[in-house]
Amino acid sequence: MNDAGTPADTREAMMLATYRALCEHGYSDTTIQRIADRFDKSKSLLYYHYDTKEKLLADFLGYLLDELDDELGGSPGDDPEATLRSMIDRIVPAEPTDEELRFRKALLEIRSQAPYHQSYREQFVRSDAIIVTKMATSIERGVEQGTFRDVDPQRTASFVLSSLYGILERGVTLEDTRRIERDRAFLLDLVDAHVVGDVTS
Amino acid sequence: MNDAGTPADTREAMMLATYRALCEHGYSDTTIQRIADRFDKSKSLLYYHYDTKEKLLADFLGYLLDELDDELGGSPGDDPEATLRSMIDRIVPAEPTDEELRFRKALLEIRSQAPYHQSYREQFVRSDAIIVTKMATSIERGVEQGTFRDVDPQRTASFVLSSLYGILERGVTLEDTRRIERDRAFLLDLVDAHVVGDVTS
Repeated sequence: MNDAGTPADTREAMMLATYRALCEHGYSDTTIQRIADRFDKSKSLLYYHYDTKEKLLADFLGYLLDELDDELGGSPGDDPEATLRSMIDRIVPAEPTDEELRFRKALLEIRSQAPYHQSYREQFVRSDAIIVTKMATSIERGVEQGTFRDVDPQRTASFVLSSLYGILERGVTLEDTRRIERDRAFLLDLVDAHVVGDVTS
Repeated sequence: MNDAGTPADTREAMMLATYRALCEHGYSDTTIQRIADRFDKSKSLLYYHYDTKEKLLADFLGYLLDELDDELGGSPGDDPEATLRSMIDRIVPAEPTDEELRFRKALLEIRSQAPYHQSYREQFVRSDAIIVTKMATSIERGVEQGTFRDVDPQRTASFVLSSLYGILERGVTLEDTRRIERDRAFLLDLVDAHVVGDVTS
């Protein structure tokens, strides 16, 4: 939100309009006009808050991140294995819907623009740090509890996240959902063998 | 090449001009004009061959793929472990130069456009199949020779490739080269533990 005085439901409505435009048009073909077309309140209100697509999109990424932060879990009382699995599910769903895939296509486009737009990059750096930290904390807890193998939590979390992004990147680029499922299953097997399972051996 | 009569050195020069423009401007900001500016022969020759940026870029991807196909190795006589490692190095270099990183940024942008441009997607589908097949063939040979563990070659190759693309995707998006090195080292450890090493256990 770029104005502390915006009512929460107005911002929600602007974010929803952005989400819908991205799902329908992808990032490159999304314009402020197309977002305004999906905004059910005064269009001038949207233009008043955001004078460029980049500003609106950067705010949208921040909004997504706050949602993700709430949803990822990882509270001290949570079961480390269940938390790790639910994080993996949240990033790469087992059976993504068409809408989830369309949105991930648009997100990949935005991510590919991060090197050229500092405002995007800042949001992705922040979300990356939050996800890796939460995942590493869960792994660390599992190691401490003796239910996980003695892996390096930070390195493991970083690699798991990279492989999840790669599974999405290839699945989206090649438009191959079965590949996402297969690679995701392979990653879960790896996590079972190298992180979660067989702690006594 | 969209014209069988183009001399090889002319095509080479057009591809080099495309590569240079992508490294300098990224994909979004690369125009046919900017490619023509880097072409050391007649500009009208370039416009004669390619009337849109999309056609030129799709041909460039095909050209890259032919180069990659030659470089990846994996002949029947090659050592499976050395081949697998050199494939990993080829896709994610151990210490990428600035130019290699700039080019990978531009490639990520083009990959993110594949869902919207069939001509790009066709080239990426083709390159993906070639890389996975070569990698799986090397793994299969290692398994048959008894130097690799008894892994599923196809699933393993697909996951390794996804994780390599993810390592690049995150490193490029976040502009963090050390992360690329760390995740890459983790993948090599995994390959050692899960594919190459410890076959007697």
